[in-house]
Amino acid sequence: MKSHRKELWFEVPERMGFVNITPDVEGELAASGVQEGLCLVNAMHITASVFINDDERGLHADYKRWLEELAPHAPIENYLHNRTGEDNGDAHCKRQIMGREVVVAVTEGRLDFGPWEQIFYGEFDGRRRKRVLIKIIGD
Amino acid sequence: MKSHRKELWFEVPERMGFVNITPDVEGELAASGVQEGLCLVNAMHITASVFINDDERGLHADYKRWLEELAPHAPIENYLHNRTGEDNGDAHCKRQIMGREVVVAVTEGRLDFGPWEQIFYGEFDGRRRKRVLIKIIGD
Amino acid sequence: MKSHRKELWFEVPERMGFVNITPDVEGELAASGVQEGLCLVNAMHITASVFINDDERGLHADYKRWLEELAPHAPIENYLHNRTGEDNGDAHCKRQIMGREVVVAVTEGRLDFGPWEQIFYGEFDGRRRKRVLIKIIGD
Repeated sequence: MKSHRKELWFEVPERMGFVNITPDVEGELAASGVQEGLCLVNAMHITASVFINDDERGLHADYKRWLEELAPHAPIENYLHNRTGEDNGDAHCKRQIMGREVVVAVTEGRLDFGPWEQIFYGEFDGRRRKRVLIKIIGD
Repeated sequence: MKSHRKELWFEVPERMGFVNITPDVEGELAASGVQEGLCLVNAMHITASVFINDDERGLHADYKRWLEELAPHAPIENYLHNRTGEDNGDAHCKRQIMGREVVVAVTEGRLDFGPWEQIFYGEFDGRRRKRVLIKIIGD
Repeated sequence: MKSHRKELWFEVPERMGFVNITPDVEGELAASGVQEGLCLVNAMHITASVFINDDERGLHADYKRWLEELAPHAPIENYLHNRTGEDNGDAHCKRQIMGREVVVAVTEGRLDFGPWEQIFYGEFDGRRRKRVLIKIIGD
């Protein structure tokens, strides 16, 4: 069984933002030499997500509005977590909605995707350097 | 390492609906010959989910009501995504709540499940042909 | 390919609670002998979650309040599922927000984690004995 590991680094300039990392994952899959297996992509930070959806600007704006409705950033006093000195209690909630990780099938050396699937890094507490892990296993 | 791949096709007649696909996944696992490994089941479309929960009619009605409250279909103008000509902005949100995929352990050739676990295809923008991917790896 | 399987048992004394199971998973990983691979940890019950986030008391209180807002326990008549004699319709919803499972990379024999990642069992219908499954595959 082969295995391959890579970290990607980000510093998103806004509090909330989405970055299409599909080309990075495809590049690591090619480097891995894996033809049949599984590819795990996960946020290594607990106020960020990795998820699969559409690369459409309007949808991303909708996600920001919707997540802000479900878990508002302010007033920051509403989150007990923010008594630790942080102001990111909302980001820990938003990340649970969008998820920590995706697992993608690898078939004939490629990400085995439907027509519109793209992998995104989702940032909910940006302006800090953060990481995503890619781990690929298979033959 | 063995690997096995299968697509399932669906055309759910309503906008929102849930289909128990556990027997299909069990059938593919038997066909794979894998005794110990992992089984990935994921929606290949970005307005649909694969999730594990109970096969109980009342619960499924509750999920529909609850998801409609968290991400209402109408008014469709509330979603910028719908300016592309779609009316499924809500479906992209509902899918994030319910998740894209499940990963199930395979032990002694069987899905390693608790007493009530069943795998569902969750459709949030139906009346179109869509696919689920099953990928099984192991020995 | 090696594989390793272990069940963890819980009986959380409240309806809702979070248990840090990271040391248990690390112990099973050591027992498995796997150096490179994937570690699946999932709830075997459909009113519970396994998720990764911060081990911070305030955050956990925030999660309880937030999940109760998104899917209130009472009035229990609001859930058709509760006509079966259960009162846990809300727990089936909360579990979907927090997720069923996590998949963690195994690198050089360790859980390949960012600085604050910890694995939790999330209980939404406690005071019953329930299980988590750990399945590790790799070389």
